[in-house]
Amino acid sequence: MKLALIGAGRIGKVHAQAIHSHPDVTLAAIADFHHSAAEALAIQYASYATTVDNIFADDTIDAVLIASSTPTHAEYLERAARAGKAILCEKPIALDLARTRDALQVLSEHPVTCALGFNRRHDPQFAALKHAIVQGRLGVLETLTIISRDPSPPPAEYVANSGGLFRDMMIHDLDMARWLLNEPIESVFAAGSCLIDPAIGEAGDVDTAMVTLATASGKLCQISNSRRASYGYDQRIEAFGSQGMLQAQNESDTRLRFTGEAGQVEEKPKCFFLERYADAYRLEISDFVNAWQTKCPPLAGAQDGLEALRLADAAERSLQEGRKILLDTTL
Amino acid sequence: MKLALIGAGRIGKVHAQAIHSHPDVTLAAIADFHHSAAEALAIQYASYATTVDNIFADDTIDAVLIASSTPTHAEYLERAARAGKAILCEKPIALDLARTRDALQVLSEHPVTCALGFNRRHDPQFAALKHAIVQGRLGVLETLTIISRDPSPPPAEYVANSGGLFRDMMIHDLDMARWLLNEPIESVFAAGSCLIDPAIGEAGDVDTAMVTLATASGKLCQISNSRRASYGYDQRIEAFGSQGMLQAQNESDTRLRFTGEAGQVEEKPKCFFLERYADAYRLEISDFVNAWQTKCPPLAGAQDGLEALRLADAAERSLQEGRKILLDTTL
Amino acid sequence: MKLALIGAGRIGKVHAQAIHSHPDVTLAAIADFHHSAAEALAIQYASYATTVDNIFADDTIDAVLIASSTPTHAEYLERAARAGKAILCEKPIALDLARTRDALQVLSEHPVTCALGFNRRHDPQFAALKHAIVQGRLGVLETLTIISRDPSPPPAEYVANSGGLFRDMMIHDLDMARWLLNEPIESVFAAGSCLIDPAIGEAGDVDTAMVTLATASGKLCQISNSRRASYGYDQRIEAFGSQGMLQAQNESDTRLRFTGEAGQVEEKPKCFFLERYADAYRLEISDFVNAWQTKCPPLAGAQDGLEALRLADAAERSLQEGRKILLDTTL
Amino acid sequence: MKLALIGAGRIGKVHAQAIHSHPDVTLAAIADFHHSAAEALAIQYASYATTVDNIFADDTIDAVLIASSTPTHAEYLERAARAGKAILCEKPIALDLARTRDALQVLSEHPVTCALGFNRRHDPQFAALKHAIVQGRLGVLETLTIISRDPSPPPAEYVANSGGLFRDMMIHDLDMARWLLNEPIESVFAAGSCLIDPAIGEAGDVDTAMVTLATASGKLCQISNSRRASYGYDQRIEAFGSQGMLQAQNESDTRLRFTGEAGQVEEKPKCFFLERYADAYRLEISDFVNAWQTKCPPLAGAQDGLEALRLADAAERSLQEGRKILLDTTL
Repeated sequence: MKLALIGAGRIGKVHAQAIHSHPDVTLAAIADFHHSAAEALAIQYASYATTVDNIFADDTIDAVLIASSTPTHAEYLERAARAGKAILCEKPIALDLARTRDALQVLSEHPVTCALGFNRRHDPQFAALKHAIVQGRLGVLETLTIISRDPSPPPAEYVANSGGLFRDMMIHDLDMARWLLNEPIESVFAAGSCLIDPAIGEAGDVDTAMVTLATASGKLCQISNSRRASYGYDQRIEAFGSQGMLQAQNESDTRLRFTGEAGQVEEKPKCFFLERYADAYRLEISDFVNAWQTKCPPLAGAQDGLEALRLADAAERSLQEGRKILLDTTL
Repeated sequence: MKLALIGAGRIGKVHAQAIHSHPDVTLAAIADFHHSAAEALAIQYASYATTVDNIFADDTIDAVLIASSTPTHAEYLERAARAGKAILCEKPIALDLARTRDALQVLSEHPVTCALGFNRRHDPQFAALKHAIVQGRLGVLETLTIISRDPSPPPAEYVANSGGLFRDMMIHDLDMARWLLNEPIESVFAAGSCLIDPAIGEAGDVDTAMVTLATASGKLCQISNSRRASYGYDQRIEAFGSQGMLQAQNESDTRLRFTGEAGQVEEKPKCFFLERYADAYRLEISDFVNAWQTKCPPLAGAQDGLEALRLADAAERSLQEGRKILLDTTL
Repeated sequence: MKLALIGAGRIGKVHAQAIHSHPDVTLAAIADFHHSAAEALAIQYASYATTVDNIFADDTIDAVLIASSTPTHAEYLERAARAGKAILCEKPIALDLARTRDALQVLSEHPVTCALGFNRRHDPQFAALKHAIVQGRLGVLETLTIISRDPSPPPAEYVANSGGLFRDMMIHDLDMARWLLNEPIESVFAAGSCLIDPAIGEAGDVDTAMVTLATASGKLCQISNSRRASYGYDQRIEAFGSQGMLQAQNESDTRLRFTGEAGQVEEKPKCFFLERYADAYRLEISDFVNAWQTKCPPLAGAQDGLEALRLADAAERSLQEGRKILLDTTL
Repeated sequence: MKLALIGAGRIGKVHAQAIHSHPDVTLAAIADFHHSAAEALAIQYASYATTVDNIFADDTIDAVLIASSTPTHAEYLERAARAGKAILCEKPIALDLARTRDALQVLSEHPVTCALGFNRRHDPQFAALKHAIVQGRLGVLETLTIISRDPSPPPAEYVANSGGLFRDMMIHDLDMARWLLNEPIESVFAAGSCLIDPAIGEAGDVDTAMVTLATASGKLCQISNSRRASYGYDQRIEAFGSQGMLQAQNESDTRLRFTGEAGQVEEKPKCFFLERYADAYRLEISDFVNAWQTKCPPLAGAQDGLEALRLADAAERSLQEGRKILLDTTL
């Protein structure tokens, strides 16, 4: 696969490395709003820096990885679809439903392989959890508890343009809930507080939130988010069913344990998503290439982005209105 | 302390053993609706079987432990208070708030040491958790996640008279939430399903529930309950704050670990409350005796029973009405 | 069983409490070199203080528990045997083999139930380990690794009369090795150092030691001892076989875990043998009573004391002579 | 660095991948006794296949990685040294001391950067263990317990040419002991059995062994080896000192835990060295490149190979002669 990377920022660099290590992908071109950033990355990976327009015009390019700033995702996705290129798009497609639906419409008219960057689905531990559920290890899945905490809150200016905690942060957990519950979610209830940084509250957002989801068959899911954890990146899921419980636990750099006067001490969890999901980013590329080669759907697609956003919107509305929001599951 | 035990059933026997092992308490008398049960227990512990009336009439008896059937609690509690005896009463005082308030009224007119059997407050691990929070180990406490699952659902006939999952089972978790959050709870939202036994649903109850609590200062708490866990009694609490996280984990009989082809296997959690809270029942007696001797309040009192019941009622109402319930925190 | 306790010191008190909590045993009398110690304990447990002579002369007494100072064990054991009383004797019978053999000779002439206080065999975790091995969980047992460390070294004057690390401390591990390996030990090699307290070295002893045992069939066992562990009492056994590994791990007071900037912290192991083996002491009494009632042999008997002492002597000799010691397995 | 790889077998492939992922190293050439193996690997990594002679004659090549069969190591190492190339040589240099000493003599006459493939020193967990010891986390290091078990025994024909368990397998543990103890080892005692495969015994070797090392200052170390573990590759080290204990634990693919009727189950350890030490092989290349660039010694050098072999020889002799072997620490 000849792949072009759009976006050479933090997440673009992560993808560039993952692309480089994949034997079947050539990093054919890199574009960035800051051309010098594209150039620097191109030198590092023996690629070449160009413009977005050139990428879409280049018929030798099979695929694009959209890792530019959020407001550009939907447009690039549509242009890529129209150009007949396979797409791996960082989440979200857009921060509002209408724009997201427009992009999906274009995709339906120009069907190309389109994967969405819900990186956690590719995490080996969460994938093993999913696999075990599908294999029936739990009997019937009944409840989920998802705990997800960032190491430290983003700056208030970031918060202002992020779409809020539910669309920016919890959307990953909402996607995990959808993926693991594997049936339509019927209701959403959200509680939230600003406990960490008053500036986040002033920006109209919360930094601490808990959400309850219920499916039509009565499966329940709790999500707990915090924008700050003194001990690092906290990413855990507990799935409970008629025959047992599965727990995806935090990972740390090593398993070294010290026992002394203060007790038995193991390392804290990995510090943030780049460290915790390093393998996931590599596997995401593999899944994308495989989907493109086999014409099978990727592990997460554009529709999953839409659905997660619907849940995030509902959670936001639940918090604003102080009530449970019912979702239309006939869509 | 000369103590009389009212109730010689399952929980009465647990208390009899705990009383016997306490050096400062004499098990002076035992009464039970089934006199033969009282007699059998009296023989075992060198006590003597009598009637409830005799117990209340006996001025040499300092205290009563009320472990009879739930509908009798409030009356015996009032009679004990009027007789000037210290009281350790199994929870609940009553299944409805009005009856509970009446009993508290009698207690306020006849002030005696009155402890309520919220056994979990006495569990060494939960007590250590509380202690660590009070000592500031977490910085500011922000969220709680309480997971509590019984090994197997009760018979439907039990469910019918139990007051429902919130009053019968989750009330312990609601008390833990109150105790650990240590500030008034302002709102309650409940979701619930009948996933395990249809007979429970037919009895008008749920067997799976999730509740979200919020305090005035914005602290949040999630509780997850299930009436059945294939692996035993699941009793865990996670407290999260500005400086870290505390996790009370399940306990098992031994720490023996087997590693073989199937992986690394440790024992499942202790099977039910008698096993998990054996120490807690002993420490509950100690706390009661100490409260009586020092005139300090016991770790859990009648007012705690009332407050937990208010939360359980609110959760029930939230489930019925499908909405968040606001609580009057000025009471 | 009417049982008399000889010895009201630290270990005597532990046994008194265990006896008290056993429903079928009456603590009929207590004797101690310091009569006042016997009196104090007698008051606490509603027993009565008397002399050793009276105990042996009292035909109503079924059994004696010998918890006096080590040099008196063999004589009291012989007197008890001659008086036809069941015996639970603290280890060791004596610090030298000849004296031990004499005592066993008296026992063979006066067969009574005689249990030896190898408390670890009664520890629920080690018992579960033994049970799992016997049940074939490991397939064929091949190797053992035993790690045993005291929290802090004893005073040098204790060391001088203790018989040395191998007879005083490692003898417990040697007994565990014999019990778990369950076949004659053919060779012993010891290495040792004085790393903790020079006074121990001056007393002719070591405070750090490693021993290797081999059985006739080629099973191997390593024991590692230290007289000091900054984190408490370290008591672990790893058994390895053709189908897996079993690990008996340290136990702590609670399972509470704190995660913060410094990592994930659990409690250190229980501080010393009274805490770690509290259950074992209770179960030791039960086993003794059961052996007496059923005429079955107790879990550890006088012969086990002799065999462990032979191994300790061999280890001591190996260290002195710097060579492997072969044991006569035809005895 | 322009590096040539000699040996395109199993371990050669591991190194090729590690070299490929290092940004500062070019895999300039590959040679193998089976030229087709070299060609296949050359195609995969865009390198070219050639002969050993060509490699040593090529002045543009900075370094060689010797991953050919053991009997060729010493000769290639000498040729590389004489050609002035930096060397990363798989262990062992040779299976006998004399040949090893000859090679070291050549190295002393032709000083080049020479790293030896003791991969475990590069394992992040063992490196963290070493670092913590050096930082004084344990106070004074006193004892080590090293447990190392392969998943399954090699074929008897491999055993026959392997140099035996001590030189082939335990040599890694002996190197870890040297590295962590960080002082001369004065005595070695070995016990060994053939418990797994009689063919190994017939080949004159053991499959189960325990070794005790002592240093001049009295530090003690136990090593336990088995050629078969039903649960995978078992690689653990416990270091104990005056202020605590450090335990390097087994690693598994994920931290997923299942709790059900059979208990709490986590994954078994990684299956073998390629999986467990994947990171170590990458870091070994980094260390080698860094040593070459900075002229600092690599983490493990030729002398370390000689010293570990001396210990393995002593262990072998100890087993044969049934006695402790004293080592000359003045060398």
